[in-house]
Amino acid sequence: MRFPLRLARPTIYPGDIIAGVITAVLLVPQALAYAFLAGMPPEAGLYAAMAPALIYAVFGTSPALSVGPVAVVSLMTASTLAPLAPAASADYAQQALLLALLSGVMLFLLGLFRLGVLINFLSFPVISGFTMGAAMLIILSQLPQILGLNLPTSGDAWSQLVRLAVSLGGSSWLPALYGCVSIGCLLAARGPLRAWLAAAGMPPRLATLACRTMPLLLVLVASACVTFLHHGGTGLRLVGPLAAGLPVPRLPEFSYEHFRALIGPAALIGLVGYLEGISIAQVLGRRHRHEVDANRELLAIGLANILASVTRAMPVAGSLSRSVVNDGAGVQTKWAGVLTALLVAGSSLLLSRLLETLPRAVLAAIIIVAVLRLLELPALRRIWRYNRADGLAWVATTLGVLAAGAELGLIAGLVVSLLLYIWRTANPHIVEVGRVPYSDLFVEADRHHEVELWPQLLLVRIDESLFFGNASAVQNFVIKQVSARPQVTDVILICSAVNAIDSSALQMLEDLTDSLQRGGVTVHLAEVKGPIMDRLIGSRLLSILGRQRMHPSTSAAVLSVAAPPI
Amino acid sequence: MRFPLRLARPTIYPGDIIAGVITAVLLVPQALAYAFLAGMPPEAGLYAAMAPALIYAVFGTSPALSVGPVAVVSLMTASTLAPLAPAASADYAQQALLLALLSGVMLFLLGLFRLGVLINFLSFPVISGFTMGAAMLIILSQLPQILGLNLPTSGDAWSQLVRLAVSLGGSSWLPALYGCVSIGCLLAARGPLRAWLAAAGMPPRLATLACRTMPLLLVLVASACVTFLHHGGTGLRLVGPLAAGLPVPRLPEFSYEHFRALIGPAALIGLVGYLEGISIAQVLGRRHRHEVDANRELLAIGLANILASVTRAMPVAGSLSRSVVNDGAGVQTKWAGVLTALLVAGSSLLLSRLLETLPRAVLAAIIIVAVLRLLELPALRRIWRYNRADGLAWVATTLGVLAAGAELGLIAGLVVSLLLYIWRTANPHIVEVGRVPYSDLFVEADRHHEVELWPQLLLVRIDESLFFGNASAVQNFVIKQVSARPQVTDVILICSAVNAIDSSALQMLEDLTDSLQRGGVTVHLAEVKGPIMDRLIGSRLLSILGRQRMHPSTSAAVLSVAAPPI
Repeated sequence: MRFPLRLARPTIYPGDIIAGVITAVLLVPQALAYAFLAGMPPEAGLYAAMAPALIYAVFGTSPALSVGPVAVVSLMTASTLAPLAPAASADYAQQALLLALLSGVMLFLLGLFRLGVLINFLSFPVISGFTMGAAMLIILSQLPQILGLNLPTSGDAWSQLVRLAVSLGGSSWLPALYGCVSIGCLLAARGPLRAWLAAAGMPPRLATLACRTMPLLLVLVASACVTFLHHGGTGLRLVGPLAAGLPVPRLPEFSYEHFRALIGPAALIGLVGYLEGISIAQVLGRRHRHEVDANRELLAIGLANILASVTRAMPVAGSLSRSVVNDGAGVQTKWAGVLTALLVAGSSLLLSRLLETLPRAVLAAIIIVAVLRLLELPALRRIWRYNRADGLAWVATTLGVLAAGAELGLIAGLVVSLLLYIWRTANPHIVEVGRVPYSDLFVEADRHHEVELWPQLLLVRIDESLFFGNASAVQNFVIKQVSARPQVTDVILICSAVNAIDSSALQMLEDLTDSLQRGGVTVHLAEVKGPIMDRLIGSRLLSILGRQRMHPSTSAAVLSVAAPPI
Repeated sequence: MRFPLRLARPTIYPGDIIAGVITAVLLVPQALAYAFLAGMPPEAGLYAAMAPALIYAVFGTSPALSVGPVAVVSLMTASTLAPLAPAASADYAQQALLLALLSGVMLFLLGLFRLGVLINFLSFPVISGFTMGAAMLIILSQLPQILGLNLPTSGDAWSQLVRLAVSLGGSSWLPALYGCVSIGCLLAARGPLRAWLAAAGMPPRLATLACRTMPLLLVLVASACVTFLHHGGTGLRLVGPLAAGLPVPRLPEFSYEHFRALIGPAALIGLVGYLEGISIAQVLGRRHRHEVDANRELLAIGLANILASVTRAMPVAGSLSRSVVNDGAGVQTKWAGVLTALLVAGSSLLLSRLLETLPRAVLAAIIIVAVLRLLELPALRRIWRYNRADGLAWVATTLGVLAAGAELGLIAGLVVSLLLYIWRTANPHIVEVGRVPYSDLFVEADRHHEVELWPQLLLVRIDESLFFGNASAVQNFVIKQVSARPQVTDVILICSAVNAIDSSALQMLEDLTDSLQRGGVTVHLAEVKGPIMDRLIGSRLLSILGRQRMHPSTSAAVLSVAAPPI
């Protein structure tokens, strides 16, 4: 088995052309929709699907990955910028470009220093819970559009729900009609429509094509309806003025103040975007035996964001849903991505008048249907059943995202999952041992009743590396044992299974030695491993213990304290 | 060796009386100083030294711990409330009381559910780095007082420094004189003064007393100077109007909005305050063989904060510096704490006129000298030399505190230390194994060259529990090995040393199995432990593997795939 590396080759396959066209059909309305979700002018979404996708085709490693505007990153962009600048202002757009630049540079640097492995710290429950919470937030943010309400989309889930409920009376039927019909068509196209059309006598190939071009059909039909039924002036919100054409490259404005406010969110947005792309790219790559290189992906997505910033677009990432469509349409090389970018550019030049009369409710419907597949309740059930702690991390992340927004929710989930992990490793295996008679073997005293013990001696074996999470458990164990036996004068800690001692544990050992020695009890260490011994040289522990309390073997330690047993 | 539990007994020892008086002498000016540091009226500091200390004497477990206002908690109170309410307003004071109530209730609940062990997650480098950063912030916040400048004390260290440098021209000599003389006297009292006085012929006992009552002497002399030299109207800031007497209990006002804004900071302030108290109480307890019960301490400090809130004080904790003084003065029972509280109440009733004319520069000097001992640069050197990762956590915490304030800095340090820990455990020991000829033994192939290997078979032993931190390392190892050997048809993962598989690792195993199977390679698991097997039942992994790919022993797995070797 071998994973050949397939970069852009001179050959373009028929599958690439079909996939490129179908992805473009999906991408044009999504680009407008995600631009609005991010609080940006609609053309920013189109620009985000051009230059960044081209640069990814040059440097990326996955043929199927569709780089451009994505829902979660757009949501995070909006929630980052909402408190910093008024929506749709020039300042807002500038800060979005700075955000793309910063997250691009950060991803690029991570790739340069080959730190793709950092991504490991986000556990599966946290990623899954985050996706769930973000999808719910995105759907919530689109409901006002569908209901014809003009509400702010910022704030936590609860306040958005309350705001929606309060203003429900002001909703109007026309956007609701456009929105619900669109949702129905898109869901049908994904599910039963092909079977219906085939049953109605349509040739199967045509039925498949009809399903796949549904977003384009919707856009055409809805725009036509608005124009011919004169729905434009009836309170139906449309896409509105669209700066047609191609972006003019320009460096984003830079100020230290904005830099400070945006650097943290940029890191998170970059990471989340990268994660969405790399996870689907790896799944598709394994399926088709392309190798997907995490560090090259970091470089490519980083460059895509830097280019997004320079071409007046918005933060970009690899889209999960479009990549799946791309793959299903038979993509083979990265020429598909190039074709998609060119088609989006063509649409921007030629179709802008048509897109301007598109109702925002249709875009909201496209977003809602796109993120519906991110609602992973079965994943929660599976995780919860398999492992309570992981389920807890999932729930904490989802609730965190809903209550405090995408960024803080992700951080909360990360911290909870790390804490739970430490919690699980914080109870080391510590046992009292005794000697097997007539031997140098020391075994657990509770399991082997025939072992020799000495009343003045406590032999403790620690079966775990010592670190801040379990240091106090070790300390409590020793103190409890010593307190229970007033005749103990010497404690021997057997470190044969201790691979590392961090400085919190070192501090604990120093405190323990100090306080036991004040109480007339001497501490000994036995079988300390070489690398740890090297570190201990020069530490306070060694100077309070003295070299003569460090023993190469447990029997040497016992002999130094107790008379040989009769 | 035995640690007897000493609660308040009917007996009061002479040591208790001396310690109670000396601590009160230290506490009265500190109480005023910390109240100003927290942005509260001066009497709040005095109130914080009364009822909370009494309730701690009833429920606490450490005779030496001096509960009342402390520097770090006051700093955190100020940095929490500065953006929420104008300093010294009634709203500010109300929110401070709510902060005390919330952190008190939280600590109380933690104690009730016996969650004192949570404190383990703060590693020694994080605590040490936090203390360092907080001490530097506190000193920075006091410099304007000493220089006679009226500057806001909020913001990060850098902006405070810049503000200080810019306004340096407006500083005046009188506060600087009071401040510098005070710092000189206090430093001398701590160090060489006793030797000087003894050398000058003073009896040693009197010299010791003079050193210990230095804060009181300073207060008396400074107030007298202000009164008799008429320094009051010359731009020298004084303590000013002091609501003399005892607090009138009243419940703090409560609103959901304040609750939401304060609950997070309250948790952190409670935790930090608890930590400062418990660490010094444990050190002193081990020295004198008192048992200090972490969960009882949580209850007691929690109750102290609740009472602080009700008696119009401010958030309280156990003070490191005063507890050391208490201990050095020979405290034996918790009667010393009761005496201190009564003496502070007496001062509040009788000395308020005197305290009103005290220059704030003297209070600033008292704070600076008190936190000087928290600057632990030797600790950094020791930690850094012992363990780079721990040193990094230390530096991250200190810089975090200086750049983003106490709360965010502490969180940053916590996250960095957790990440570094995971980083260290993220590289599991994975090896390819082969069979010792004519046996059922499988050993590392790289170390034993005579072992049997099968070209179509890859045997991998994983020597670590699988979790999100190391899952991708395992996956990469297997994929790299399989890619390098096209003739491999079967991979056997030997799980004899795997004690746990979390759901991220489970997901990885499912992905790995899926993708290898698509490439024509079959995955087998061998020697999966009982508890893990129980969890795997019903998982997707088992259904894609099939029961026949789970083998009780490695040799059974090999036999099921390869013909027995000739």
